[in-house]
Amino acid sequence: MRPSGRAADALRPIKITRQFTRYAEGSVLIEFGNTRVLCTASIDEKVPPFLKGRGQGWLTAEYGMLPRATGQRTQREAARGKQDGRTVEIQRLIGRSLRAALDLKALGERTIMIDCDVLQADGGTRTASITGGYVALADAIRFLKSHKLLKEDPLRRQVASVSVGIHNGTPVVDLDYAEDSNAATDMNVVMDDSGGFIELQGTAERGSFRFEEMLAMTELARKGIQELLEAQRQALAGEP
Amino acid sequence: MRPSGRAADALRPIKITRQFTRYAEGSVLIEFGNTRVLCTASIDEKVPPFLKGRGQGWLTAEYGMLPRATGQRTQREAARGKQDGRTVEIQRLIGRSLRAALDLKALGERTIMIDCDVLQADGGTRTASITGGYVALADAIRFLKSHKLLKEDPLRRQVASVSVGIHNGTPVVDLDYAEDSNAATDMNVVMDDSGGFIELQGTAERGSFRFEEMLAMTELARKGIQELLEAQRQALAGEP
Amino acid sequence: MRPSGRAADALRPIKITRQFTRYAEGSVLIEFGNTRVLCTASIDEKVPPFLKGRGQGWLTAEYGMLPRATGQRTQREAARGKQDGRTVEIQRLIGRSLRAALDLKALGERTIMIDCDVLQADGGTRTASITGGYVALADAIRFLKSHKLLKEDPLRRQVASVSVGIHNGTPVVDLDYAEDSNAATDMNVVMDDSGGFIELQGTAERGSFRFEEMLAMTELARKGIQELLEAQRQALAGEP
Amino acid sequence: MRPSGRAADALRPIKITRQFTRYAEGSVLIEFGNTRVLCTASIDEKVPPFLKGRGQGWLTAEYGMLPRATGQRTQREAARGKQDGRTVEIQRLIGRSLRAALDLKALGERTIMIDCDVLQADGGTRTASITGGYVALADAIRFLKSHKLLKEDPLRRQVASVSVGIHNGTPVVDLDYAEDSNAATDMNVVMDDSGGFIELQGTAERGSFRFEEMLAMTELARKGIQELLEAQRQALAGEP
Amino acid sequence: MRPSGRAADALRPIKITRQFTRYAEGSVLIEFGNTRVLCTASIDEKVPPFLKGRGQGWLTAEYGMLPRATGQRTQREAARGKQDGRTVEIQRLIGRSLRAALDLKALGERTIMIDCDVLQADGGTRTASITGGYVALADAIRFLKSHKLLKEDPLRRQVASVSVGIHNGTPVVDLDYAEDSNAATDMNVVMDDSGGFIELQGTAERGSFRFEEMLAMTELARKGIQELLEAQRQALAGEP
Amino acid sequence: MRPSGRAADALRPIKITRQFTRYAEGSVLIEFGNTRVLCTASIDEKVPPFLKGRGQGWLTAEYGMLPRATGQRTQREAARGKQDGRTVEIQRLIGRSLRAALDLKALGERTIMIDCDVLQADGGTRTASITGGYVALADAIRFLKSHKLLKEDPLRRQVASVSVGIHNGTPVVDLDYAEDSNAATDMNVVMDDSGGFIELQGTAERGSFRFEEMLAMTELARKGIQELLEAQRQALAGEP
Repeated sequence: MRPSGRAADALRPIKITRQFTRYAEGSVLIEFGNTRVLCTASIDEKVPPFLKGRGQGWLTAEYGMLPRATGQRTQREAARGKQDGRTVEIQRLIGRSLRAALDLKALGERTIMIDCDVLQADGGTRTASITGGYVALADAIRFLKSHKLLKEDPLRRQVASVSVGIHNGTPVVDLDYAEDSNAATDMNVVMDDSGGFIELQGTAERGSFRFEEMLAMTELARKGIQELLEAQRQALAGEP
Repeated sequence: MRPSGRAADALRPIKITRQFTRYAEGSVLIEFGNTRVLCTASIDEKVPPFLKGRGQGWLTAEYGMLPRATGQRTQREAARGKQDGRTVEIQRLIGRSLRAALDLKALGERTIMIDCDVLQADGGTRTASITGGYVALADAIRFLKSHKLLKEDPLRRQVASVSVGIHNGTPVVDLDYAEDSNAATDMNVVMDDSGGFIELQGTAERGSFRFEEMLAMTELARKGIQELLEAQRQALAGEP
Repeated sequence: MRPSGRAADALRPIKITRQFTRYAEGSVLIEFGNTRVLCTASIDEKVPPFLKGRGQGWLTAEYGMLPRATGQRTQREAARGKQDGRTVEIQRLIGRSLRAALDLKALGERTIMIDCDVLQADGGTRTASITGGYVALADAIRFLKSHKLLKEDPLRRQVASVSVGIHNGTPVVDLDYAEDSNAATDMNVVMDDSGGFIELQGTAERGSFRFEEMLAMTELARKGIQELLEAQRQALAGEP
Repeated sequence: MRPSGRAADALRPIKITRQFTRYAEGSVLIEFGNTRVLCTASIDEKVPPFLKGRGQGWLTAEYGMLPRATGQRTQREAARGKQDGRTVEIQRLIGRSLRAALDLKALGERTIMIDCDVLQADGGTRTASITGGYVALADAIRFLKSHKLLKEDPLRRQVASVSVGIHNGTPVVDLDYAEDSNAATDMNVVMDDSGGFIELQGTAERGSFRFEEMLAMTELARKGIQELLEAQRQALAGEP
Repeated sequence: MRPSGRAADALRPIKITRQFTRYAEGSVLIEFGNTRVLCTASIDEKVPPFLKGRGQGWLTAEYGMLPRATGQRTQREAARGKQDGRTVEIQRLIGRSLRAALDLKALGERTIMIDCDVLQADGGTRTASITGGYVALADAIRFLKSHKLLKEDPLRRQVASVSVGIHNGTPVVDLDYAEDSNAATDMNVVMDDSGGFIELQGTAERGSFRFEEMLAMTELARKGIQELLEAQRQALAGEP
Repeated sequence: MRPSGRAADALRPIKITRQFTRYAEGSVLIEFGNTRVLCTASIDEKVPPFLKGRGQGWLTAEYGMLPRATGQRTQREAARGKQDGRTVEIQRLIGRSLRAALDLKALGERTIMIDCDVLQADGGTRTASITGGYVALADAIRFLKSHKLLKEDPLRRQVASVSVGIHNGTPVVDLDYAEDSNAATDMNVVMDDSGGFIELQGTAERGSFRFEEMLAMTELARKGIQELLEAQRQALAGEP
């Protein structure tokens, strides 16, 4: 039995609110149950130095957690003067995952910056960030298209992410904090709409995990991600 | 005529949402028109080293702006590795202002941390932070009282804040970004419910301002703050 | 009775020594009693990036306190690796105040850097910095004029600053450390030679302060600043 | 055909030199072909603050690359003042992987620090670090045992790691730099001697990778890791 | 011929002003011609962690240069966020040199911090810092003695320092900036009152220097330091 | 009697291995007994900003110690976020010493970066770094010559370094850690192949040292450096 009473393959309620704030080219509040992340996409008509003159664009991501997003306040990284290791690891994952959605040549010499700021954290903030970040990215691309700034559509694939894990011996999807802090294995999966893997990061928190468990987890992830891809499509189909 | 069409003494629509997030002892979303700030109050059962063993508590504040709260993205301070001068100046103002609301002896040896994070910025973020921060603080004090952790009520005065300025030669209250970036004089006023001043910070952006203008601005501020104090009382009177 | 025996409206002895050091375009040692601040003005024939090509100049200020300027040694900020909040707040105030003295267009595309370093601190270091910094600035402008580097005079107004406060229930001017650490209210006022306000920063250290107290303090400040403006004029009239 | 001429399932020559330096409790130079990493294990008879008094030990890891380990010199992180994101990501992976080898209760209240410093980099530095780090860790545990500092053996499982990827459409094991910089997919696998997964981190560098490719890569990894586990055992069986 | 017209063995005018500021236990303005350094000695009744409980004291030094001490303004180290290499090198030299003056056991478990802040720089700031720092140190020891805080006198030797160099082929003493920036060899010598060396740091700025030149320079240094030791004694003999 | 049983004028066994790593233009492992330092020379076809357009090159050096090069692990400087004072002092010494070997005009507008990383530390790491760094530099110059990138040979003198000191009252050369941590005086000497001094840095660790001791130490250093210069020549004469 899961602490939340959910079935092993049941996601938490997913809610995607577009245009949550007014100024960003894409601004999405994504909720996976009590986890709430504000994802914005900002367009910068420049590329980083290592790409200058290469005729291609770039996407990068930053991640932050408001100090009191969690049960215990965490120190503000800006006050501490550096981002901690977990933050760095997560924002690199978000960046790689959403870069995979794009044809960087088709984007042209500009950068899209995805900011994921966690307003409330109940597990799964990195997978919510990727899933919501994709919608913000899609809105930013629409902005570019509506301003006639693109020759071809740089969005090549749809990307979403979910966590899976082994909790009390059972593979489960979309772990909340109560499960996550207690799971034997934790795996974050990022997939595209063709069913291919973009990222797969599995960690044994206790002992190691078997090949069969890995297969069961990736199957749960595949199914959960299909639902998330559908939620993204519905959000993007409606009025913002 | 103000860009927003408001009368010189008209505040923007004020909205105060308590328990905007679940985990903090006080959590308030305050909106001054399009300016939206999330203010949380967190209780820490410790005091800073300089107060150890003095039998009194402390309150401190931190301020941050999400990178895309504004029309142009600003660099994330955590990534940059330091808070900029404006941030430091603002969070010191918020801390001093809300400390003035408290009897630190009555609070006991604990610290209340006020975090003000701007989700959307349209001018007046520091005054919204103080006004919303007070409500979060009041909720945190209620939390302490309901847990029987206080012998006497440490809340000694109610505190709110508004900006005033000279725009196109006219004194106006609660400047939005369009006015603020164009005002000859900008003044932030923090007052308590007895009509006394907690902080007064006036800056001539062009030239200097006359004594009479100062009087007109403080009068506008007094009136605006009365409305804000009433809005705080109504918010605190209702169900969270 | 004030700790120093001064009358409520009496400044401490003011001493302004020009050319205190040899290399800066302006170099002023200013003394407000035991408070001694070395203010230098340096000319840099560049502007910051955000002003490039705009046909105007800039003025900025930095503030520091020698570690043993005070009764207790404070940590050297260079060793600690960052400036503390108070330093940041003060140097922003000095910069804004002295920028107000200038017509930045008339200055041309160059920057004047005001460095205020406190050799000895007995209260009022920020107001001494502004008052002495103005004289250093005036000397730097004379340097530019004598080298025929200016078409018109960029000095548009004379600027000085003093602190006022409520000590033992009485409004007093130019607080020394003994008063300042004990005052109920502390206000720093920056004015120009037309009697207009450049900056007004009042803080209630205990409780709040009344409108009438604010009026009494601004009146004391106005009078004190007139004396300081006169002291600046005399210093600038003589041989350096 | 691989650039090195190796078969798809062929590791590079593996060489493990124990006691490469004299002072560390474990000191191992591991070579995967031209990749050379010095792994040391240091024992500290303390635990980090968050574990004090919990009756258990800790293991953590740090990773560094000498500036000229690579074809192009990279900036020294100590001079730059911070570790870059890649370094942080790698050292967290090494730490988690080797922590999985230990029963932290059996280790007692002490910390083992694994330092992995890359002397020469030709791809696969993180997998070499984990594989060599295990041997250094085993030597440090022997040191503790020989000094009668342990009641029971804290080494619960043997851990090794290898990279796999899709290069020119073919799954291959132990990618060198020429392959790695050109691979469509890159996966780092950490396993124990029971064939269980400790960590699995797959990244699609271009497009996405299919489930079947993932299976082929994990199978190659399993086989390669068996060889590495054997190489570790042989190294630990001999005189250091 | 030296730029200043001095004889090869002539020091610049030396001036030592005790009690230049009021609060430090020792406060000395030392002038070597146009070089002016404020040296303060502060007593802290603690020792650094590595000395706790060892029954001995410590002395350490910090060095700083006001941004406009020089012809060209240098960046403020506090603003830049770190001390530069030259500063670190100099403050370590000052600390070692003045530590040599003390019997640290006799000092007891306290730390003396020497702060050397350059108000005006015309070459030789490090040797002026050591020479003036000694006088500040001696005053701080007198403070401890007059407060009966010492059982025995910890001052074991008198310490002073001068620079020597090869300028236009001639060995000269106490180089000013015009000579220093043009010298083939530069040597800083620290000696005690028995004629022994505390520190000797010679650097060939162009080519290398011969043994005979080294002998000539040390002889010039010995003679210059005798004059400086006498100047220290005279300063300490008078009223502060 | 020296702890190692060596005669007062006997160096430890010296071993110089060229091409210790593959990618750097010069890569030398130098061993002074148990002290082992990897010195690489990297060529960068740019000069630092202060030399742009001056028609000359530059050489700079960085120094680091692997955390467990020593008996007690030291904190990784990259993790701590800054280089400590000793590191800064040493790398400045290495840079000045090896710059003295070069005619910077003849080098042309390029920079040579010398990285000295201590794999194992048993005293004398800075002198080993200079001595090994010279060989790496010579190999980098050969690389430039073999690629026809130089018009004339920029190597003007051969440079080597050794430590000398007073141990148990006796002047000795090339101190190991056991001697160094116990010596009354410690002196690092850098000389060229004409017998001239490049750098001379003597420090009295206890008391002061006499002129005669200084002469005895420089004589020991001269002799030891002759042997090191010969070892460099032999290393450079053979196949790498």
